[in-house]
Parts: sequence; structure tokens; C-alpha cells
Amino acid sequence: MDIAHSYRDKKALITGGLGFIGSNLARKLLDLGAEVNILDNADPATGANPFNLDGIRQQVKVIEADIQDEAKVKEAVQGQDFLFNLAGEMSHIGSMQDPFKDLSVNAVGQLKLLEVCRVTNPAVRIVFAGTRQVYGRPMYLPVDEKHLLTPLDNNGVSKRAGEMYHIVYNRVHGMATCVLRMTNTYGPRMRIRDDRLTFIGWWFRQLLEGKPIQIFGDGSQIRDFNHVDDVMDALLRCAANPAAYGKIYNLGGEPITLLELARLMIAVHGSGEYEIVPFPEGRKRIDIGDYYGNYGLIKSEVGWEPHVPLRDGIKDMLEYYYQHKRHYL
Amino acid sequence: MDIAHSYRDKKALITGGLGFIGSNLARKLLDLGAEVNILDNADPATGANPFNLDGIRQQVKVIEADIQDEAKVKEAVQGQDFLFNLAGEMSHIGSMQDPFKDLSVNAVGQLKLLEVCRVTNPAVRIVFAGTRQVYGRPMYLPVDEKHLLTPLDNNGVSKRAGEMYHIVYNRVHGMATCVLRMTNTYGPRMRIRDDRLTFIGWWFRQLLEGKPIQIFGDGSQIRDFNHVDDVMDALLRCAANPAAYGKIYNLGGEPITLLELARLMIAVHGSGEYEIVPFPEGRKRIDIGDYYGNYGLIKSEVGWEPHVPLRDGIKDMLEYYYQHKRHYL
Repeated sequence: MDIAHSYRDKKALITGGLGFIGSNLARKLLDLGAEVNILDNADPATGANPFNLDGIRQQVKVIEADIQDEAKVKEAVQGQDFLFNLAGEMSHIGSMQDPFKDLSVNAVGQLKLLEVCRVTNPAVRIVFAGTRQVYGRPMYLPVDEKHLLTPLDNNGVSKRAGEMYHIVYNRVHGMATCVLRMTNTYGPRMRIRDDRLTFIGWWFRQLLEGKPIQIFGDGSQIRDFNHVDDVMDALLRCAANPAAYGKIYNLGGEPITLLELARLMIAVHGSGEYEIVPFPEGRKRIDIGDYYGNYGLIKSEVGWEPHVPLRDGIKDMLEYYYQHKRHYL
Repeated sequence: MDIAHSYRDKKALITGGLGFIGSNLARKLLDLGAEVNILDNADPATGANPFNLDGIRQQVKVIEADIQDEAKVKEAVQGQDFLFNLAGEMSHIGSMQDPFKDLSVNAVGQLKLLEVCRVTNPAVRIVFAGTRQVYGRPMYLPVDEKHLLTPLDNNGVSKRAGEMYHIVYNRVHGMATCVLRMTNTYGPRMRIRDDRLTFIGWWFRQLLEGKPIQIFGDGSQIRDFNHVDDVMDALLRCAANPAAYGKIYNLGGEPITLLELARLMIAVHGSGEYEIVPFPEGRKRIDIGDYYGNYGLIKSEVGWEPHVPLRDGIKDMLEYYYQHKRHYL
């Protein structure tokens, strides 16, 4: 399927468009000839960063509001052909500290957004950014979409509620919605300030600042990673492809241990070190052990698979932050 | 396990205790020698009925408040040994009409309740009334707990969020929580006014008033039913048994088609008729097709299985309403 033609002269709204994935997607959509609109609450804690729109600020329309702000959401949704629904609370540890905010944004906010779409723009095609966190601790590997869902933190609960609403709105109201369960995504424009959202951003910061990369546990935990270019490709393919509507798909990448990952980052950077440290209190209890996803379903139904090798992706990300690090600290 | 001794001189809080299952459970707990407290918002639309406490009103303490009322919940939870957590929105059709209220009670309310318990009474043993609605349309029968969860209405989403929070609070905070996924429950003190909550209450009313029982569709849909005595038995066994903590169990009964059920009700009543009518608009889209549950897990781990034959249960229920119908219309 030719993505290039699906977005030319189309209107696309990105919720969370000031954030990591959203801002990269905005650039890509502009390249593809789309009109790009952004709805974002501009909260730096969720990854929003004005610098992420550097160079394209004049080409996109930004509505600064939370997805719980019904009036603003109505304004934003009107007339859109596509909705890339990336806004949300993503912090596992944050969800344990303030579970109500987490639930309010990820469930109440998503429900409001879907209701506004249903009433004012039911034909809009929606892709929702879900998370592999909904699986909890894997019972087998690689994890496919049939795996039981036993989230181990409040964020997994609220994100799961958000994805279920998307599917209900497809089944009951006939809307074009799709859910992608993303795994660890990395690349330019991600939040690297601390490890509130992701450990990998934090690792990059440690590496860039000449500090040892801190590995919690023993480094043997397995994870998989997607470069943001691959994640954007999945978003764009699914929004444009009716085969994806009503579906939940895992993304996924090549499995690697955290120790191997740290070593690879150091090798690509050319210097650096790591240290193995115990899990901080509060983190161990919500750690999911080993994880990597089976992305066979989206591959067979939508033709997506990841293409960016981890080594190249790390290089790409490092080069971005060599130049722009100061905007992310 | 001897349930009789587990509750003597113990304090038990029942949320939703003015409702169908809760009020029957209150009577049972009094019989077992427990001190019974009730927290209920007294909303007739959710099944609350003051007459349900007829004859035991002086023996129970009732706090009239919603589970979202943190101060009242704190007061209610204090010092309790057991919490039978039956409060909630249960209307499938209602959740499509007002999805925000449904989410607010079933997810935000449950999260508040759990937070209050965690902070003020973390040792309380909790059983949560879940629903088979979280499965959506079955992909195989009988449905076991490994079945994919694809709820077909907003109520399935919010109830699923509620049960996930109970499991997170077990896994992360070590609390004693258990979830029962109930199927169609029937018996004395259930709401029979209309079909907002259950079709079976409504069928009983039609039968009692000499009107034809209206069967939506073609009558071939399969369902399973539990008499409230069996459901109480499950609640009491699970709250008292550490093997159940952190677990999600299906309840379930003998499968029967709706047509057979209508005929059986008419036979037990001694007269009556039924008619096959098309699904009303809005109902068909959220109908789940055939369903019956596999209750092998709770049987093997907790020793529960249903004992009340459908014919006896129907007789029991009819006799209650022959006498008390006027309090339920």
C-alpha cells in the first residue's frame, strides 16, 4: 500500500503532537502533503517539548489543551480525516503516585475524545497509541495479542481502558479505530531528562553526559525496541488501511538484553560505561521481567515490520542529541 | 472449608448492600454471626431497594453514600474484616447512554475505594463483583478465564477497569483481593421493574403480571444462570480463603436457551406465554450471542460449584414475588 498518496491534502490531528512520537509524525505528515493539527496539553512531564516543532512551527496548527477539554477537542477534531491519538499519561511510576490523574487522562479523557468524534466527526480514522504494559509480566515469549492481560501497575489499567473504548466504538458505533500496542520506542525528540517515562531516554542522557549507564537488576532482562521511524510507519499504515480498523496490533522488535543494549550504545557512542545497580524501591514491584512482542499479526494484515537496525537507530538518536541536547535537559 | 466459623463476630462491609445480591448477603452474614455494614448510594436504578432490608433494618448499619464519596468510604471501611464490593453501574444499555457516569462509578469509584482501603485498612479482605460482560462475544464455549476480553459495551470496559485495579492492588500492594466474574444471577430481591439491568427480572415481572414474556431474537441464544444463594456461597468462600486472593474466577451454571428458560418459568408458574420479538434498536449491537461460563477454576481452587437447580431457583424466586411484588414495581 502506498502511504504517500493516502495523506496528500488530507487533514490530520495529532493528540500529543508536541511529544516524542507525535512531533516526528507531524514532520512526516507534512512531508506527505498533509495539513497537520496538534492538540497537546504541553505538559513537559508527558514528553511535550516546544523544541520538537523547531523548523515546522509555522506549518502546523497547535491547540494547547488537554484531551479532557471538550470544547477544545471539538474544535480540534472538526473536519479531520485522520486522528493519531498519542496523548496520554505513560509513566508507570507516576501512575502509582497519582492513580487518579492517570485514570482521568487515559480513560475519562479518551472516552471524551471518542464521544466528540462519534458525535461530530464519526468518519475520522483513528489510531490509538496503546502499550505493551497492558500484558503485565509475560507468561510466554514472544507475547502475542492473545496473551492474558494482567497489568502490573495503574497505568496498565488506564491504558487498557483507553484501548477497549476504541474497540467498543468500532464494534458498536462502526467507527474506524485501531490500537497499536507499542513497545519501547526510541529516537530523536524523546524525553531524556529523567527516567519517569522511559529508561532508555535516561540512559542516553547518562551516556551523553559521560556518566555510567545505570542498569537496574542484573542486566539480563530482555526487551525489544522500535525506532520512531518504524513506529510512524505503523501509525501511517494502520490509519490508511481499513483492514486495521477494529484491530489491536502489537508492535515489536528484535529482543536484546539490557546489558547488551548498554554495551551497544557505548560502542556506537565510542565511549562510556555502565553499572549494575539494585532496583529502586517501588520499581521492582512493577517490573515486568522479560518482554518482547510477536508482531506477526500486523505484519500479515497490514504489512508492517520494523526496518531500522538498533545500531543505526542508536546512531541516529545520538547524532540528534549531540546537536540538540540542551533543549531536552 | 467451614464458612460458618469464618464470619462469626467479624465485621463485614457490603457496598451495594441495598441491592439484590448485597441484601441477600447481608441476611446470610447476620445468620453467620457477623456485624454487617452497608454502603449504598440508594439509587433505585442500580437495584437499591429499602424493602430489601425488611426485617433486618435494625441489625445493620447503613451509610447512604456513593463509593466516590471518599469521606463516607473512609468511615465505612474503618475496622472492617471483609469487604464485599458489589456496588456499581451494571446496565449495559445505560452505559451506552451515559458512558461517563458508568466510568466514573465503576473505575474512578473503585479506585477511590481501593485507595482508601490501602491507606486506612490494607488488611481488609475484598471480593469484587465482576461480570462476564468483560468477555464480549464468546469465541468458544464454555468461556474460561483465559478467553480474550473484548467487551462490546462501555459497561464491559469500566467493569474490566475495576477488576484490573483489584488485581493490581493485590500484586503491587499485597492486598487480599479477589474478582468473581458473575453470569446472570437471579433470585429474591432482584430488580424486576424493567429490563435496564437484567432481562430475567423483567421476564419474571411479565410472567407475574400475566403478560407474554418477550424473547428478543429467536430464543436460541444460550445463557447460564446462578441462583443468588450460589453466588453468595462463592462470595463467602472466596473472601475467607487465601487461595482466592489475587485471582479472577468465573462463576457459571448449566447452559440453557432463552426459549427453554421461558418455557421452564411458565411451567413452574403454572401458566403464562412467551412471544418472540425482534431486538430493539441499540440492544442488538451490544448483544453477545451465546454465552456460558467454565467455572472449573473456582471449583478446583476454592471448591465452589452451583447447587440450586434452575427449576427450584425459579420456584423460590416466584414465591418471593407472589408475596412482595408490590415493593418492586
